[in-house]
Amino acid sequence: MNTGSWSKKAIAEAKKFCTVRLAGSTEEEHFCRIPTQDELCVNDDAAYVHITGNNTIFGTEYQYVPETGAVPLVCDASSNILSRPLEVGKFGLIYAGAQKNIGPAGMTLVILRNSLLGRARPDLPSILNYQLHAENQSCYNTPPCFAIYVAGLVFRYLLDLGGLSEVARLNREKANLLYQRIDQTDFYRSPVRVDSRSFMNVPFTLPDPALDTEFLQGAEQAGLSGLKGHRSVGGMRASIYNAMPLDGVRALVDYMAEFERRKG
Amino acid sequence: MNTGSWSKKAIAEAKKFCTVRLAGSTEEEHFCRIPTQDELCVNDDAAYVHITGNNTIFGTEYQYVPETGAVPLVCDASSNILSRPLEVGKFGLIYAGAQKNIGPAGMTLVILRNSLLGRARPDLPSILNYQLHAENQSCYNTPPCFAIYVAGLVFRYLLDLGGLSEVARLNREKANLLYQRIDQTDFYRSPVRVDSRSFMNVPFTLPDPALDTEFLQGAEQAGLSGLKGHRSVGGMRASIYNAMPLDGVRALVDYMAEFERRKG
Repeated sequence: MNTGSWSKKAIAEAKKFCTVRLAGSTEEEHFCRIPTQDELCVNDDAAYVHITGNNTIFGTEYQYVPETGAVPLVCDASSNILSRPLEVGKFGLIYAGAQKNIGPAGMTLVILRNSLLGRARPDLPSILNYQLHAENQSCYNTPPCFAIYVAGLVFRYLLDLGGLSEVARLNREKANLLYQRIDQTDFYRSPVRVDSRSFMNVPFTLPDPALDTEFLQGAEQAGLSGLKGHRSVGGMRASIYNAMPLDGVRALVDYMAEFERRKG
Repeated sequence: MNTGSWSKKAIAEAKKFCTVRLAGSTEEEHFCRIPTQDELCVNDDAAYVHITGNNTIFGTEYQYVPETGAVPLVCDASSNILSRPLEVGKFGLIYAGAQKNIGPAGMTLVILRNSLLGRARPDLPSILNYQLHAENQSCYNTPPCFAIYVAGLVFRYLLDLGGLSEVARLNREKANLLYQRIDQTDFYRSPVRVDSRSFMNVPFTLPDPALDTEFLQGAEQAGLSGLKGHRSVGGMRASIYNAMPLDGVRALVDYMAEFERRKG
């Protein structure tokens, strides 16, 4: 499923090892949305279907788990894992870099259906053979102990908050606050279709790109950094991962209102 | 070059991708030494020669840099990097897991001759293509920031100590103290030939394996842990990486003397 930059990287990488067929793509619509279940076109003999659960650059996110029948569903959940409950049983394989919601960069979490073990290509490096990792209790290589330790603290913190349903409520509140501010007038605009909007990455544009620099400078002065959108999309992007508190989003929304009053 | 368990793993892995020829091996001597320069048998058309700079399990270490002519020398320096000055220019590629002398587990340091870039097999995963890493200033993947930060602190600490020549002096002092204690009587024995002894991992045996458990229990009580030798060698093994202070080795040597007085 081609839904943006990370999907395209996954496709390019897969092409080294298998025949890639597109089960769906929104590239022609500049990735402004996630394909619907009806648009999915899965070959029964496919080895797997790969999705990018959340697209950081385009600000789209699957709000449903695709049904792929007997074909295993593989998900890159790097940028939205732990942001909400996940129906793990519906996936064949979930992988997620730690650096967004799990813990320090330098670790990848993999959740794999047992029946998919033992199917690694023998001509791939051993380190990519999940069966070896499973047989060795994730200690085939020297594990990144500190990153695992901090991830454990994060897991405990999220449980203490009330678990992933409560985390989801908080993230929904944060995202809704921001989307409401964007939709409130025509000054700010979201390039993303409402049903596909990400709770983690919120891109938006100003009425004139010439205002971007001034918006970013004022934001920086207000203590709001990292808002410049990815060069392939332009405009702004607010990344509001688990670690961003509601007050951070409130501060951004207040600044957006003030900027609009001055420039709108 | 087959000098122990890590070499064998490197050979098994290389066999997936190339024809492996042994340029030397001490397996028949149970890896009790490092082959000499004279024993090396390098094919001129070899893509590279691979050595394990220090063999953690068997306690052997190259005390010279093999001459391999025009054939690039590749070194797994995971367990002895930063323990002494290294003639980097003599190697084509040096790689080292961070977890011994560099910093937290979860990072690998690679030092590569520029002329070896761009020679990766296209049928290998991109993450293993060093050219991509070089082009992206080691940020092709999200780098393990915390591990890199701590490694920086370690580098600064080693420089403050006086650099690698001083680190080497300290490590030599530690290792010599231990080897002298082992060689002092016939009670303890080193399985390693004198010219190949490692400064990082020092295996030794007691006169009777039946004493091993008692030795280990007493050591544990004296605050000396992790001394049990690898199952493929038996006996004891003291790992005295950079982080082990001279006083730690002194405590071990004192305990060994006391144990010998009681049991010898």
